[in-house]
Amino acid sequence: MGLIVQKYGGTSVKDAERVMNVARRITDAYKAGNNVVVAVSAQGDTTDDLIEKAKEINPNASKREMDMLLSTGEQISISLLAMAIEKIGCPVISLTGWQAGVKTDAKYGAARISTIDTERLQAELDKKNIVIVAGFQGINKYDDITTLGRGGSDTSAVALAAALHADVCEIYTDVDGVYTADPRFVKNAYKLDDISYDEMLELASLGANVLHNRSVEMAKKYGVKLSVRSSLNNNEGTYVKEVEQVEKMLVRGVTRDNDVARIALCGVEDTPGKAFSVFRMLAKHGISVDLIIQSIGNGEKKDISFTVTEEDLQPVLDLLEENKAIVKADEVKWTKDVSKVSIVGAGMVNNSGVAATMFEALYDAHININMIATSEIKISVLVDRKDAEAAVVAIHDKFLLK
Amino acid sequence: MGLIVQKYGGTSVKDAERVMNVARRITDAYKAGNNVVVAVSAQGDTTDDLIEKAKEINPNASKREMDMLLSTGEQISISLLAMAIEKIGCPVISLTGWQAGVKTDAKYGAARISTIDTERLQAELDKKNIVIVAGFQGINKYDDITTLGRGGSDTSAVALAAALHADVCEIYTDVDGVYTADPRFVKNAYKLDDISYDEMLELASLGANVLHNRSVEMAKKYGVKLSVRSSLNNNEGTYVKEVEQVEKMLVRGVTRDNDVARIALCGVEDTPGKAFSVFRMLAKHGISVDLIIQSIGNGEKKDISFTVTEEDLQPVLDLLEENKAIVKADEVKWTKDVSKVSIVGAGMVNNSGVAATMFEALYDAHININMIATSEIKISVLVDRKDAEAAVVAIHDKFLLK
Repeated sequence: MGLIVQKYGGTSVKDAERVMNVARRITDAYKAGNNVVVAVSAQGDTTDDLIEKAKEINPNASKREMDMLLSTGEQISISLLAMAIEKIGCPVISLTGWQAGVKTDAKYGAARISTIDTERLQAELDKKNIVIVAGFQGINKYDDITTLGRGGSDTSAVALAAALHADVCEIYTDVDGVYTADPRFVKNAYKLDDISYDEMLELASLGANVLHNRSVEMAKKYGVKLSVRSSLNNNEGTYVKEVEQVEKMLVRGVTRDNDVARIALCGVEDTPGKAFSVFRMLAKHGISVDLIIQSIGNGEKKDISFTVTEEDLQPVLDLLEENKAIVKADEVKWTKDVSKVSIVGAGMVNNSGVAATMFEALYDAHININMIATSEIKISVLVDRKDAEAAVVAIHDKFLLK
Repeated sequence: MGLIVQKYGGTSVKDAERVMNVARRITDAYKAGNNVVVAVSAQGDTTDDLIEKAKEINPNASKREMDMLLSTGEQISISLLAMAIEKIGCPVISLTGWQAGVKTDAKYGAARISTIDTERLQAELDKKNIVIVAGFQGINKYDDITTLGRGGSDTSAVALAAALHADVCEIYTDVDGVYTADPRFVKNAYKLDDISYDEMLELASLGANVLHNRSVEMAKKYGVKLSVRSSLNNNEGTYVKEVEQVEKMLVRGVTRDNDVARIALCGVEDTPGKAFSVFRMLAKHGISVDLIIQSIGNGEKKDISFTVTEEDLQPVLDLLEENKAIVKADEVKWTKDVSKVSIVGAGMVNNSGVAATMFEALYDAHININMIATSEIKISVLVDRKDAEAAVVAIHDKFLLK
């Protein structure tokens, strides 16, 4: 008995059979006596197909018109899902983003939800309707349709849960929950029962691909309890919430991120502020730099290495070439054959032995470490891509063997 | 220099090439110094594909959810068309039905436009934007999306033209204009330069398939001058307007309608009000009866024949069976092998010789007439379907040879 917000991704509603399956799941929750609000993504490849259609006509279409186009994907999903629920015989209504009162800023293509005006939503819940809301979209102050960008439907669901003070926000996906490592290559990996918001944030940004960062940030901010679970079975998922660290588990998960490229500026003048001037130049062009190391200079020359996403590699190389006068390096080297392997755990902050144990695991597995970065709740190392899976397994089994 | 409303149907925007073609047409009108507002239908088979998707999930989906689904078709068209215009380099904005202020009643699937709140439209025109509006759709007082039913985009265009006091409403279609008869089988048929609203209404309802009736009714009511023309060439089309009958052309067009079935009630009791009771029963079930004849009764029995659309045939037969007590016919006969051939022309009302000339044309062509109906501006006859094309040719060449 409560208010549940559920979110289903594109693969969960990709065809008629999956839509019916999701409809049964929703009506089961409703028949158990809950109020149910559902956020849905566009079916399967719909969004990609629409982007393709647009590109054929104008590869440089305005973001405003792209949002007008792409928002139809979710509108199709919500109506089909509502029809499936009608078939089961439960009262239901679908609402677009604007009908559901989802207000955003005006940044087309990557809008942020500012508020949710819950009047209509509340009225439909009062009528005992199941409410199906188009994820990923909202409306700005000009009454124009906006989309929220990648992972937007997760954010829609969390925002709805926050605005309606839902008891839980269930994120249905194609995995069972959050694992200690990728079970596809770590055979000892297991599902976590719960995880804190901060840990989830690190895991998400490190490539766990379960929940989008922005949705976790919002859940943390408004104290929305998340449940990550599979739409294909009835297994208990993983709860994301403020975890009281009862068992003091140091490390909660090991991740690998292949979307990384390393750039080395060799033989840079060793003058104060040199590194700063390079990174300021990159930041000015919207490039996010991740790991950074510089060699200890000898007063004349030093080396600076840093990592960026693969997508940013070419733009960075171009920028370095254009700004030779600032950079003044003898040589620029780069490689994509690297991976970032990280351990995440809120318990690490007060335990200095964790890093040493991680390095020991890699040493025992004969894996070379290129770069290292640490934060309060994570430690990342850069390794050769060929070593990445072995590194994850070695670290996982060192810390997380059950 | 004025305000032009244009309407493009689904075949005119069915693929990227056609969309670009339409975009050029629109920008040509804009570059000539006009304000341009455009109503667009869904691309090609989009609506049918969406209906198919819905049926797969729930063949009895509510009309409210069907409208939510189908309205995405036009939303896709308007955004793609706006992108094409952006590519050409003209300022443009697409608006859904609700954004364009198109208010309707709450009859989902066949809503009627009640008013158009032109505030947003006017603001966009003031900014010198070309405005692309989703046809076929509006919003009701519950803030829910409605669709206007068949031919809805024509109605949208005319309503926009009326609300904005446009100088002309150009309906682009895949024919050059309104012809004196179907040029596919009447080789002497030719395009009319202009035609009155009333004549167009009769032609539309008689199967000319150029303009939807409701849009012509609305154009007449608000005095919107229509121009029917092809989106594939630059030929002058046909104007639909209040025509001053200068040349007193008696007959303006000959049409054939195959969507007709004849039902005969043989041996009905010849008592006063018998026919009335049958037709009242049919009307109560939403059946529109077109032509009606009854034989002169002999005081005991008579025959009543009438026509309905093919779609209504089976429901009518079922109703007659269920209501045997009211109908009391010895036998019910029916056939679909009939066609309705009609001549239309505002000049006929004061000229009693027209009907005689029409019958003479049919007599000369050895075509038998089953039923006859006349109104102020049209005369319809029912003939065997096999004779229909020959009947149209014979009548056309009798009245309309140039």
